[in-house]
Amino acid sequence: MILVLKRGATEHQKEELIKHIEGMGLKAHVSVGEGTTIIGLVGDTSKLSSFTFSSYEIVDNVLRVTEPFKQANRMFKPDDTIIDVCGRKVGQGYFVVISGPCSVESEEQIVGIARELKKAGASFLRGGAYKPRTSPYSFQGLGLEGLDYLKTAKQETGLPIVSEIMSTDVLDRFIEDVDIIQVGARNMQNFVLLRELGRTNKPILLKRGLSATYQEWLMSAEYILSEGNKNVILCERGIRTFENYTRNTLDISAVLAIKKLSHLPVIVDPSHGSGKPWMVGPLSKAAVACGADGVIIEVHNNPKCALSDGEQSITPEQYAEILPKIKKYVEIEDKQLEV
Amino acid sequence: MILVLKRGATEHQKEELIKHIEGMGLKAHVSVGEGTTIIGLVGDTSKLSSFTFSSYEIVDNVLRVTEPFKQANRMFKPDDTIIDVCGRKVGQGYFVVISGPCSVESEEQIVGIARELKKAGASFLRGGAYKPRTSPYSFQGLGLEGLDYLKTAKQETGLPIVSEIMSTDVLDRFIEDVDIIQVGARNMQNFVLLRELGRTNKPILLKRGLSATYQEWLMSAEYILSEGNKNVILCERGIRTFENYTRNTLDISAVLAIKKLSHLPVIVDPSHGSGKPWMVGPLSKAAVACGADGVIIEVHNNPKCALSDGEQSITPEQYAEILPKIKKYVEIEDKQLEV
Amino acid sequence: MILVLKRGATEHQKEELIKHIEGMGLKAHVSVGEGTTIIGLVGDTSKLSSFTFSSYEIVDNVLRVTEPFKQANRMFKPDDTIIDVCGRKVGQGYFVVISGPCSVESEEQIVGIARELKKAGASFLRGGAYKPRTSPYSFQGLGLEGLDYLKTAKQETGLPIVSEIMSTDVLDRFIEDVDIIQVGARNMQNFVLLRELGRTNKPILLKRGLSATYQEWLMSAEYILSEGNKNVILCERGIRTFENYTRNTLDISAVLAIKKLSHLPVIVDPSHGSGKPWMVGPLSKAAVACGADGVIIEVHNNPKCALSDGEQSITPEQYAEILPKIKKYVEIEDKQLEV
Amino acid sequence: MILVLKRGATEHQKEELIKHIEGMGLKAHVSVGEGTTIIGLVGDTSKLSSFTFSSYEIVDNVLRVTEPFKQANRMFKPDDTIIDVCGRKVGQGYFVVISGPCSVESEEQIVGIARELKKAGASFLRGGAYKPRTSPYSFQGLGLEGLDYLKTAKQETGLPIVSEIMSTDVLDRFIEDVDIIQVGARNMQNFVLLRELGRTNKPILLKRGLSATYQEWLMSAEYILSEGNKNVILCERGIRTFENYTRNTLDISAVLAIKKLSHLPVIVDPSHGSGKPWMVGPLSKAAVACGADGVIIEVHNNPKCALSDGEQSITPEQYAEILPKIKKYVEIEDKQLEV
Repeated sequence: MILVLKRGATEHQKEELIKHIEGMGLKAHVSVGEGTTIIGLVGDTSKLSSFTFSSYEIVDNVLRVTEPFKQANRMFKPDDTIIDVCGRKVGQGYFVVISGPCSVESEEQIVGIARELKKAGASFLRGGAYKPRTSPYSFQGLGLEGLDYLKTAKQETGLPIVSEIMSTDVLDRFIEDVDIIQVGARNMQNFVLLRELGRTNKPILLKRGLSATYQEWLMSAEYILSEGNKNVILCERGIRTFENYTRNTLDISAVLAIKKLSHLPVIVDPSHGSGKPWMVGPLSKAAVACGADGVIIEVHNNPKCALSDGEQSITPEQYAEILPKIKKYVEIEDKQLEV
Repeated sequence: MILVLKRGATEHQKEELIKHIEGMGLKAHVSVGEGTTIIGLVGDTSKLSSFTFSSYEIVDNVLRVTEPFKQANRMFKPDDTIIDVCGRKVGQGYFVVISGPCSVESEEQIVGIARELKKAGASFLRGGAYKPRTSPYSFQGLGLEGLDYLKTAKQETGLPIVSEIMSTDVLDRFIEDVDIIQVGARNMQNFVLLRELGRTNKPILLKRGLSATYQEWLMSAEYILSEGNKNVILCERGIRTFENYTRNTLDISAVLAIKKLSHLPVIVDPSHGSGKPWMVGPLSKAAVACGADGVIIEVHNNPKCALSDGEQSITPEQYAEILPKIKKYVEIEDKQLEV
Repeated sequence: MILVLKRGATEHQKEELIKHIEGMGLKAHVSVGEGTTIIGLVGDTSKLSSFTFSSYEIVDNVLRVTEPFKQANRMFKPDDTIIDVCGRKVGQGYFVVISGPCSVESEEQIVGIARELKKAGASFLRGGAYKPRTSPYSFQGLGLEGLDYLKTAKQETGLPIVSEIMSTDVLDRFIEDVDIIQVGARNMQNFVLLRELGRTNKPILLKRGLSATYQEWLMSAEYILSEGNKNVILCERGIRTFENYTRNTLDISAVLAIKKLSHLPVIVDPSHGSGKPWMVGPLSKAAVACGADGVIIEVHNNPKCALSDGEQSITPEQYAEILPKIKKYVEIEDKQLEV
Repeated sequence: MILVLKRGATEHQKEELIKHIEGMGLKAHVSVGEGTTIIGLVGDTSKLSSFTFSSYEIVDNVLRVTEPFKQANRMFKPDDTIIDVCGRKVGQGYFVVISGPCSVESEEQIVGIARELKKAGASFLRGGAYKPRTSPYSFQGLGLEGLDYLKTAKQETGLPIVSEIMSTDVLDRFIEDVDIIQVGARNMQNFVLLRELGRTNKPILLKRGLSATYQEWLMSAEYILSEGNKNVILCERGIRTFENYTRNTLDISAVLAIKKLSHLPVIVDPSHGSGKPWMVGPLSKAAVACGADGVIIEVHNNPKCALSDGEQSITPEQYAEILPKIKKYVEIEDKQLEV
């Protein structure tokens, strides 16, 4: 951390500040330029708020030198993390396709879709039992009943299960029945939930918040990692921008950036990322081109009657058409599709 | 809800769509213009997603006519809601000043500040026992111990307590010890938490999310209201914009807009809304000028050593200077300061 | 400017970088912490791009210490700038009310409105002769004919004229006929136009761009100032955010921030800043509360039939009601209304 | 255009509104639902502001049914526009690579780079003679001298020239010397400039504004098209978001959206879109995957010493490595690289 002092700072004021710094067990490295004094803080500043010193009148600016995330940081773990889920690898040279409906609506529905996905070549089955909806009057998911149906679908097809958790009171059931626990965009900074998930060893799919920066996103991963759970997969799902033609704006550069900053696997959600079924194919290919470790695609047998997010789902037929195109790109990028 | 159809829509396609609408218990009011067909949906569309119909190929656009919030809507309850908290009124002609430190750090600290605030003329004491921090390595609050100290401060000064809840597992203690339960910006869409709070009858201070629209914010209030708890106070605390000079950008028009759309009380947080202690006074006056029902101000006895958000706190001395200026504006606006 | 080097930087790489710095006539002040090397650049770095050094592989981060604006900077001119326009003062203890229709539509219209404004107590008359419209099919203004009508309105009422310029080819006429030349939000970074305006000595009203930061805005003022024209008035007119209920989101903190960073006068446009006539009064009061040097308000005799922006205009009757309330706030803030 | 009326609207008020509509030569198609009245406007509403009617007290909401752009609209011209520039085709099945330095710095520099680009296989040479810089103190380009050097580079290599115009006073020279005239992001809504360019028949490369919506961007294209010039190429160059790790956030979905909405060619600028040289390759591939008609890439012989934007430029060597990878993707997508 670097403190830039204002021009008029007196010696007395500087001493008081330095005393404060040293009182925290840090060293203050003072360097005086023409008019400007700069103090470099040496030691572990990761727990310091950048605001601690900005309340000093003589401090003009506080600059952070190192990223505040440690365990998610590629600097401290240069090799890609590979997570094994029921024999399928996520990360590095492997590519996964997670697919399924937004919500589990019935046993028949989810088992039916799962069979078609399995046939087309999916890696994982996704399906929501608990749905975070903007309106309290919208369908909120089948709850534990939904988890039961997902379990049946897994038994029938062998596809491991990805499903979203919304609160810790059903954590035990998720640990038992779900293979990858998803944390939704709206819960990216539900720190109590993150910490509890960090105390399990379940793979966690952490979606990026609607307006979250890369650093905030990685800090949320850090909440999980710092409690001991190293199995975190990040998911870019589009950010809010001024453009309303698409539901969200997919930030494809996020894949490149996160891969540089962190060793964790990154997948892309082109369905939420655009809200347009006809964009799902091309955006999936773009994700592969940028080095993503997978995609998560919404597929519904009857999008028009879906109880949630039908408008962005593709049909199993469209899915079977898109998948070979994605595979072709995966091969060009020398990756292996995990099925 | 209005559906605008594409130019080329065939009669057969229209019939299929109308059948779907009528199957939902709604009436379809078809109106044909030059080239364009418009279908108005008549009946209760509040539970419908605007996306239900956008997956139809012939549907060009789906337009919502009525707001999806009901209980928060001023249309259905024209009179201002007034909430009574320990004899202090919030809403309509009353104005409250909530103040205190970001975090409770010790009994001595919180009791000391509370005494100074009481003397200066505060309505409520705020203090965080649980702190949502971006980093897992930052101070997370004293937890239940913090609630104990707040209770002592209340006993000493008579100031009712405002404190933030982060998860439902400590809800019982909050109901017992806290007078207004705060939901932070990052939990504005933690729907499980909102629903549980809706099942109590405690006053809830619901902060606006960092990038939330007015409608999303009111829908979150609707989660609480629809469960039976009518005591919701909204709090504008600044939104994220491209400007980083201020911590957030205070959206002062939000006060005017929410007052128009809803009957719920609205207060303003100039401390988080700017992150600059010297902006707190003027922004508080602007809040009064726009009809806010109160302000929430961070005050710390020693901002430089605060364990969180010290940089935006004012000192009790500054507080005592600012308060009379706010009062003057409150009087001009014909409101009554509640102490 | 400060360069933070990566951990693995070799001595050879550092020397190469330092040579580059010194080759630019700057001194390099090297300071080595635990693992991290920091280089402070001493000398005039105002013309340097912060990107010049970020292309060096060993440079991790480039941090700017001083603001790149000079002449607009309060640090170098601590006293408020006061601009005299036809005997009316703008800046410091003076407050101006600029008002009039979005577009000049006819001589009758503008003269009629001007008379009513004069009676109610306006400081300046605004009216658009050239209108920047999103669509080429919308009314683009009367052009030079509009300037003629404004001139007549000035002769009839004595109110000085504020009007927007869109390109330099009509600059001579603007210099002759207009008292304050307005630069619209969409032209805030039309650098050719700014530079030409800098070569006149006309007062310039520079509106903030739709998504501009404070620094970008001040740098645009710097374009004018650096050419010799010191008469720049800044105008906050709302920024684009995710909220569409209001046309723009008025950033009231901008007034406080710009006053701190710069000595230039700042006024507020509550009409464009909200797009809602009923918000104009309260937002004007909020502007006064935050120290603005004036407001610019759209007034139209028949908002429903206005050729542009009628929806946000107030009527002369509403104007006459609002003005006394603004005046009351101006008095409390110990400022003088210039008429 | 559709007007949704408020519940309490009286017959008299409705009649007044309908009279206004019919007075504009439009038909009013009234449809009454339960409680809500909807009026559909039939006729040419393209020149109407959506605000014209929102000032009516009884109008609750104004909804636009058709896009306001006509000539840019694919609905009215279903086939892709193909633009021929010096024998190179832009649009449909053709793919172009435009490359070169941000600024022309000397004859030697631009001719040298042009030769290397030609060898590697570029379609066009770009180079800035006029540079829009945030600071008046930054290098502003060589001006007409820069155009001379570009001409020489064209003579030496045969590569057609792309260069940015900032004002109309040098338009004649641009028409003579430049093959594609670029309009920068900051001038996307410089309507005077757009209109003048519309009166030429030169191909125009119109960059998207920093926070522009698709519709605003297409409306700016409409300014050019409506004056008669049909040769418009759109360029996605990244938008401003809250993420500062990248210079801008490349909106890759924009390519898909614009291709759907319009028949005009769309290219992508991965250099400005990310600000990171190491992202240029992958983002170019993503652009191809999403159907872009080309990319524009910054290449500089010595990025560290570039007078502008060096930090995002790649070297000719890196360029020669990336190009074959882009070509491979172009082939998979069945397009032809134009050289």
